[in-house]
Amino acid sequence: MGQLTFHSETERHEWLRSQADLPAGFKAGVTSFTFKPREMNTTARMNLTLLTCDPPTEKFAAVFTRNAFPGAPVTIGRERLKEKKLGAVLVNNKISNVGAPDGVKNAETVCAAVAAALGIDPRAVLPGSTGVIGWRLPAEEIVAAVPALVKTCQDQSVLPAAEAIMTTDLYPKVRSVTIGDGRIVGIAKGAGMIEPNLATMLVYILTDVDVSRNDLRDCLARAVEESFNAISIDSDQSTSDTVVLISSGKAPCPDLEAFAHGLNSVCRKLAADIVRNGEGVKHVIRVTVTGAPDMIIAKGVGKSVINSPLVQCAVAGNDPNVGRVLMAVGKFIGNEHPDINAENCSISIGGQTVFANGVFQLDPDRETVLRAHLESAQLYESDPPDARGVFTPPVRFPPHEKTVDICVDLGCGGARFTVLGADRTHEYISENADYRS
Amino acid sequence: MGQLTFHSETERHEWLRSQADLPAGFKAGVTSFTFKPREMNTTARMNLTLLTCDPPTEKFAAVFTRNAFPGAPVTIGRERLKEKKLGAVLVNNKISNVGAPDGVKNAETVCAAVAAALGIDPRAVLPGSTGVIGWRLPAEEIVAAVPALVKTCQDQSVLPAAEAIMTTDLYPKVRSVTIGDGRIVGIAKGAGMIEPNLATMLVYILTDVDVSRNDLRDCLARAVEESFNAISIDSDQSTSDTVVLISSGKAPCPDLEAFAHGLNSVCRKLAADIVRNGEGVKHVIRVTVTGAPDMIIAKGVGKSVINSPLVQCAVAGNDPNVGRVLMAVGKFIGNEHPDINAENCSISIGGQTVFANGVFQLDPDRETVLRAHLESAQLYESDPPDARGVFTPPVRFPPHEKTVDICVDLGCGGARFTVLGADRTHEYISENADYRS
Repeated sequence: MGQLTFHSETERHEWLRSQADLPAGFKAGVTSFTFKPREMNTTARMNLTLLTCDPPTEKFAAVFTRNAFPGAPVTIGRERLKEKKLGAVLVNNKISNVGAPDGVKNAETVCAAVAAALGIDPRAVLPGSTGVIGWRLPAEEIVAAVPALVKTCQDQSVLPAAEAIMTTDLYPKVRSVTIGDGRIVGIAKGAGMIEPNLATMLVYILTDVDVSRNDLRDCLARAVEESFNAISIDSDQSTSDTVVLISSGKAPCPDLEAFAHGLNSVCRKLAADIVRNGEGVKHVIRVTVTGAPDMIIAKGVGKSVINSPLVQCAVAGNDPNVGRVLMAVGKFIGNEHPDINAENCSISIGGQTVFANGVFQLDPDRETVLRAHLESAQLYESDPPDARGVFTPPVRFPPHEKTVDICVDLGCGGARFTVLGADRTHEYISENADYRS
Repeated sequence: MGQLTFHSETERHEWLRSQADLPAGFKAGVTSFTFKPREMNTTARMNLTLLTCDPPTEKFAAVFTRNAFPGAPVTIGRERLKEKKLGAVLVNNKISNVGAPDGVKNAETVCAAVAAALGIDPRAVLPGSTGVIGWRLPAEEIVAAVPALVKTCQDQSVLPAAEAIMTTDLYPKVRSVTIGDGRIVGIAKGAGMIEPNLATMLVYILTDVDVSRNDLRDCLARAVEESFNAISIDSDQSTSDTVVLISSGKAPCPDLEAFAHGLNSVCRKLAADIVRNGEGVKHVIRVTVTGAPDMIIAKGVGKSVINSPLVQCAVAGNDPNVGRVLMAVGKFIGNEHPDINAENCSISIGGQTVFANGVFQLDPDRETVLRAHLESAQLYESDPPDARGVFTPPVRFPPHEKTVDICVDLGCGGARFTVLGADRTHEYISENADYRS
């Protein structure tokens, strides 16, 4: 982290392109079409994205949202995990297919169309949807577009797919690593709230490294816990969140541990990209909790800090408001683990100790240093609002990967956990309140 | 609820005055002074508020924050609960006395000064503080101001006290009921985040109704659970939250149940006032959860909805975004109670069913009705931001008591709970991010 710096959208795009080579055995295709939703009187545009693995593979894994009202693609996806093989993933944006009439039936219809075009089993096609909830999936229009979609498939770059799955994302997200003669390449979408109805994170990770189905599933579960489950933009959890990992098995695996390590790295970097691209995000906040009785508590403390609206607002204003951090730590411990003795708790921001032995350590000089730390991590200066009071972020790429670093040492154990979050800005409110859905 | 309407600050003030008669046995005094905090190079102004009960009474109760880093007044207050008698409450604003050097010692010093002036035991004085955290309490300056403070004491109205304990509150909060020949009168401060460092709620409830110490404590614990513990402005929990109930015992209690009922009413109305006065609040949101397996789950679902930033933003924009409500319900159930069968869940907004049988029930006509419900509950129209992009609420009083009414029927039990929350607006961000502490 903290290594990459970009001075323009073009520069970042060139870097993305360099990361996006498809692993052996995979193809990617994209198309789009205009349609008339039944629920409104205008037209809308939908992207379709197809990822194929030829031949279909038994080596695949997936993790889905825990939301009690999952979208139809999640309901189907959970069933697909029991299937022998996976040969394709079909993703649409614009409509999430959540709480919509005939959701599962329509999703199966489009999977069957893809399967027919590719000559594979319909249950070897995994659907994915993101966008407005409640709207009916335009199954007929999607089926009609499938032949054109299949024709666009190529085996060079996953970048067009990373772009096509976007909704309100400001920029595409691609990360990759090399493992022996093979590669792991992941793409992600997600920006907090989408289109503008729902936070949805979709992640597709492709690899040619030959890892068994069971090992893939173990590795993915662990990687997700420390990456996608360790971030929060708005503490809300989509009904569609999905992470998929597929191996074509075309390259030998030099070492399972190296693979797991590479997968963790791709997941952590994509997760950080999602936060950095979060709606209205001006600062990424990294909270490291150490000295905890166990990892669950360390994670809980970290999430309490990054999900505190008061901490988020302070960071947005470059205000090193140490009282709010202490409040958020104490809120979690006092309510969830009142048995913990927190008297040895210490807190630092940007490496400066600000609280220890029950007392704040504040003076004007330290305040200046803390403020400089917050300012250096800012992704952009806000533009003034327009005539209607609407704020729009002035950049469409992340100029750097710096974070606001908050460390909380609970002083009562040996466990640690790191979480990533974001500040709360006028740009976030404008994105989510000023525009009507 | 929903009864009171005010057309001006003056009109509301007159109504407050009519509610504010002190019960028999109590006096209230206020004063203020300017001082130089050690932590900054300017001057600051502090209000002192004194509430006395003459003679000191053994009939008192208090409930404090569960935050693991309580302020010195909370630490002392917990000890005071074991004392035989309570004769006075001393409240200062401006400084919260949290994480400050010599916090307990300084608070005890000012209590002793009040006790000496009143001729009572120092341990019969309860301290309360709200404001900036980390700053040292100016004990010497407070002690010097105590004689003047005692001189201002009068037995007519609690309104000066309700005004003096305010920090960023837009207006004072007083509620009262009559019980037989006696009264219950409560005052509250709290607006989300204070001064601008910390959310702090301080509530003082005075009654002349003669209720035993044990009954008072039982009644208060129950009243708090359904009032102050059923609201959320920003999900953050202050290190200083305090609710105190004192009886002078001067009026006979006609019926303990009537007293408990009256206390509940005062607490519920003060809690609603606090939400309505929350920083940047444009809509109060009332979420009623029914059909739950138990009350804890009903409350959890309600809090998940009112604490969802996406729901909050949608309401701020008068957007009846039913998908976000479903997401928030599903997030809580799926993560905390995945065993619950939620397939019979239904959701209504403003009395209109919007989700049932797993499918949204949306059409353009219903959207119009829902939007009208949100607009009718709006407390004010935002003024445009100033040249620096800062939004300021245009009213300093609540013109009405209408709420955005969301009902969630989980369809899997008989328990219910109602929570109050608020929307998330540019005014909130301006209050908490645009101003530097």
